[in-house]
Amino acid sequence: MSDAPSGPYVIGVDYGTLSGRAVVVRVADGAELGSAVHEYPHAVLTEALPGGTRLGHDWALQVPADYVEVLRHAVPAAVAAAGIDPAEVIGIGTDFTACTMVPTTADGTPLNELPQFADRPHAYVKLWKHHAAQPQADRINRLAAKRAEPWLARYGGLISSEWEFAKGLQVLEEDAEVYAAMDRWVEAADWIVWQLTGSYVRNACTAGYKGIRQDGRYPSPEFLGELNPAFAGFVAAKLDQPIGQLGEAAGTLSARAAEWTGLREGIAVAVGNVDAHVTSAAAQALEPGQMVAIMGTSTCHVMNGDEVAVVPGMCGVVDGGIVAGLWGYEAGQSGVGDIFAHYVPPTYTHERLTELAAAQRPGEHGLLVLDWHSGNRSVLVDHELSGLVVGETLATRPEDVYRAVVEATAFGTRTIVETFDRAGVPVREFVVAGGLMKNALVMQIYADVLKRPLSVIGSDQGPALGSAIHAAAAAGAYPDVRAAAAVMGRKREAVWTPDPEASAVYDELFEEYTRLHDYFGRGENKVMRKLRAIQRRVAAR
Amino acid sequence: MSDAPSGPYVIGVDYGTLSGRAVVVRVADGAELGSAVHEYPHAVLTEALPGGTRLGHDWALQVPADYVEVLRHAVPAAVAAAGIDPAEVIGIGTDFTACTMVPTTADGTPLNELPQFADRPHAYVKLWKHHAAQPQADRINRLAAKRAEPWLARYGGLISSEWEFAKGLQVLEEDAEVYAAMDRWVEAADWIVWQLTGSYVRNACTAGYKGIRQDGRYPSPEFLGELNPAFAGFVAAKLDQPIGQLGEAAGTLSARAAEWTGLREGIAVAVGNVDAHVTSAAAQALEPGQMVAIMGTSTCHVMNGDEVAVVPGMCGVVDGGIVAGLWGYEAGQSGVGDIFAHYVPPTYTHERLTELAAAQRPGEHGLLVLDWHSGNRSVLVDHELSGLVVGETLATRPEDVYRAVVEATAFGTRTIVETFDRAGVPVREFVVAGGLMKNALVMQIYADVLKRPLSVIGSDQGPALGSAIHAAAAAGAYPDVRAAAAVMGRKREAVWTPDPEASAVYDELFEEYTRLHDYFGRGENKVMRKLRAIQRRVAAR
Repeated sequence: MSDAPSGPYVIGVDYGTLSGRAVVVRVADGAELGSAVHEYPHAVLTEALPGGTRLGHDWALQVPADYVEVLRHAVPAAVAAAGIDPAEVIGIGTDFTACTMVPTTADGTPLNELPQFADRPHAYVKLWKHHAAQPQADRINRLAAKRAEPWLARYGGLISSEWEFAKGLQVLEEDAEVYAAMDRWVEAADWIVWQLTGSYVRNACTAGYKGIRQDGRYPSPEFLGELNPAFAGFVAAKLDQPIGQLGEAAGTLSARAAEWTGLREGIAVAVGNVDAHVTSAAAQALEPGQMVAIMGTSTCHVMNGDEVAVVPGMCGVVDGGIVAGLWGYEAGQSGVGDIFAHYVPPTYTHERLTELAAAQRPGEHGLLVLDWHSGNRSVLVDHELSGLVVGETLATRPEDVYRAVVEATAFGTRTIVETFDRAGVPVREFVVAGGLMKNALVMQIYADVLKRPLSVIGSDQGPALGSAIHAAAAAGAYPDVRAAAAVMGRKREAVWTPDPEASAVYDELFEEYTRLHDYFGRGENKVMRKLRAIQRRVAAR
Repeated sequence: MSDAPSGPYVIGVDYGTLSGRAVVVRVADGAELGSAVHEYPHAVLTEALPGGTRLGHDWALQVPADYVEVLRHAVPAAVAAAGIDPAEVIGIGTDFTACTMVPTTADGTPLNELPQFADRPHAYVKLWKHHAAQPQADRINRLAAKRAEPWLARYGGLISSEWEFAKGLQVLEEDAEVYAAMDRWVEAADWIVWQLTGSYVRNACTAGYKGIRQDGRYPSPEFLGELNPAFAGFVAAKLDQPIGQLGEAAGTLSARAAEWTGLREGIAVAVGNVDAHVTSAAAQALEPGQMVAIMGTSTCHVMNGDEVAVVPGMCGVVDGGIVAGLWGYEAGQSGVGDIFAHYVPPTYTHERLTELAAAQRPGEHGLLVLDWHSGNRSVLVDHELSGLVVGETLATRPEDVYRAVVEATAFGTRTIVETFDRAGVPVREFVVAGGLMKNALVMQIYADVLKRPLSVIGSDQGPALGSAIHAAAAAGAYPDVRAAAAVMGRKREAVWTPDPEASAVYDELFEEYTRLHDYFGRGENKVMRKLRAIQRRVAAR
């Protein structure tokens, strides 16, 4: 890019758990010209509301006004950093954590902004990691299995407590007044777009993955009524809404939002999206068989397929869930980088342990780990599972355990990849995004364990770049997201290649991993569940 | 003891791994009046001989002259500390680590003291933890199993690399000249008595446990010759020797030893003994069914029985192995306190972790551990096993793991106790000795897990007191060791009592422990052995 092209430009905004990031991207080539981050003033509420009302165990709330602040601060700051004329921005796209839910009135006002509900926990945003709806999720799963609901297989057989129905049912059963006042139960991904455009369009991605919308339908009133008679009308009353496909324009920038952001009124606003899914466009990995792994504290795997298939233990498969016209598959590992961090003892650092662990050869430490410290999302879909370390002796050092934990997450990834392969949805390319792509030790271990070259996304701001690509498509600069991604996305192929000698040792270790995985994970020995049950019983005394 | 009785006195000398401790004890009541410790100048040789000759992996040697220094320094110092007249000392008794072997000439001169052998590793003492004879031990075990040697069951089916035959065969096969010059292959427990009296008497305890002497016979020349033709005559030429029963006098103090110690020539010298076994007398636990657990970095369990029985996985059963006239059973856990230490992270201490762990209730941490970080001595007798931690989550803290490790060693003890019970050698009382008896958390957990009261030895110098009791018996002050122990030993009964609520939780956890114990320890899943095999193969590359 010696001859720097000029505008037009698009803006991508990535809403994370603690902050939002805006990036200015050139439409002609995807160059990232400037970015800015704004932290949410209220961060995550886990202990109490701003007014002091205490929250229960496993609660995680947010304040929706914080999201608007990102538009007011990070967007203008990114434009300033890029040194461009905001009048040359032709579109804006956003992505969000999911499933993160906002209870609103009919005009989109969050209920926590109504004075009568300011001290009511259920009036606030339920963040993705709000896990207090587990009892509701358990009931949903039991009833769905009993009734053999046709949609259950599309979610690997289990609906998460993080998703729309479990969280909505919790509101109904714990605060009927808030539930009654809640005209809409809105994904934050769509709520922020509603703020930008002034109209509510529901995106196909979260409607499918988190809202159990399959083949154009949601769970039936009969099903919901059997959960709770007052829940029967939930979909029609609070959830159903016209669907927008990813990469379409949800509308245009309102006057109010133009004032917030400093952008021109009337530019295109893309349909809402999710951080992991939008990364596929940034990584130029939208074709069937290209699996993108967004590797950070946890890992999310997204991949398109031509057909719908049942992949045991996947998080979901959704028509148009990643890109319109293809079936989007999602899987995940609930703990990755956070498990690495758990095994950094005092006085040690990730850097030091990585350096020491990198000096070892595969098999040298004599350890094997099951990476279930946060449960297992795919392919076992069991959050009652826990970690296991076997092989430790008095000679075992922190770097040994650290390396074994990294390897365990690679074995977990291989389990997912092989499950897709066996289900007839073959993984043809493995593309890494997310913070761990910077760690050479982790990348080499993954290449050796997966026995395939790893591609790597060419941007450090994958989700924001992906949102910008969707903005360009929504603005009509490209015919669709795939065309926009082909020009604006960035991927480096075969950055890491497997070492056959290492792979041979990992084949042996993976066989042992799989044996332990199945023994502890598929019900032969339920010790992990029993330990949790005893723990809960003792804690309740 | 308001009216302090006067002499006579006896002296007990406890030879440990790094030092020897002498204690002056009053015969009338067992009062410990003074003690002194002398560290071995050469400590343990693991890297090189004093002259610089390098040692191989897993070697652990000592210098026998260091043991004599204890007699010359610690004994007079203990007498001085007690403020008694040395002329009132009527006997001396000793106990030693085992199996610790001295190669000597016919007059007891250690071969390393001959100038021609000063730089020959095999001329030195092989300390108990010299593990370089594992190949020889493996061959002994394979051949004994193949030939169905009748003595094998008396050792739980496995002979240790630490014992007399494995170490002796290593000398033969690695240094034939030293082997040829070695007229006697002497337990250090007997060699020190030889130094005191001038004559060589072999004690019944180590001859039985470490020397495979059963029913008055050693392994046959046919068996030994099949191991190595040059080994056929080993017993007759270098090992066999008149047996002294524990508590008998091996002889009287020689003029030379009287000069070393400052004691009177001609006083009684007790037959040699072993630190763990001699502790039974100090703890007043010589009756059948009284199990003494000497708990420190590892734990040794000794108990008398009326009859000989096969207890699966015991270390050995020996006629008169603890006290003459009864069958002495021994079992052990190869890692206890050293595993606790392994789980103290930087910036933490045992004291801090104990304090934090003590605030928890059983089952609260959600963890279960297999305590095999140094392999499993009883009841699995498998040093290829390794540790396992299951149940860890991101919320797990160091004190959680620490407590779970303590509990695991208690479950290991319960496994041993129940195995004795089931084998028809019931454990009627559990008596704790050793450094861990000071740790209230450990003691309470053991009481709760074992579901029985714990007695505790009433001395901090259990082995030395036990040796002094044997000296009193050898001197004729009491008719036998049992009578001497009844007066001079000390035990506090039911110092720790089980909490029924805690025991109920531990019953549940022990069931899970046993399931994992059998799954990983009895061959159903050989992952621990496989990990070690891979580790060794990789290291050898």
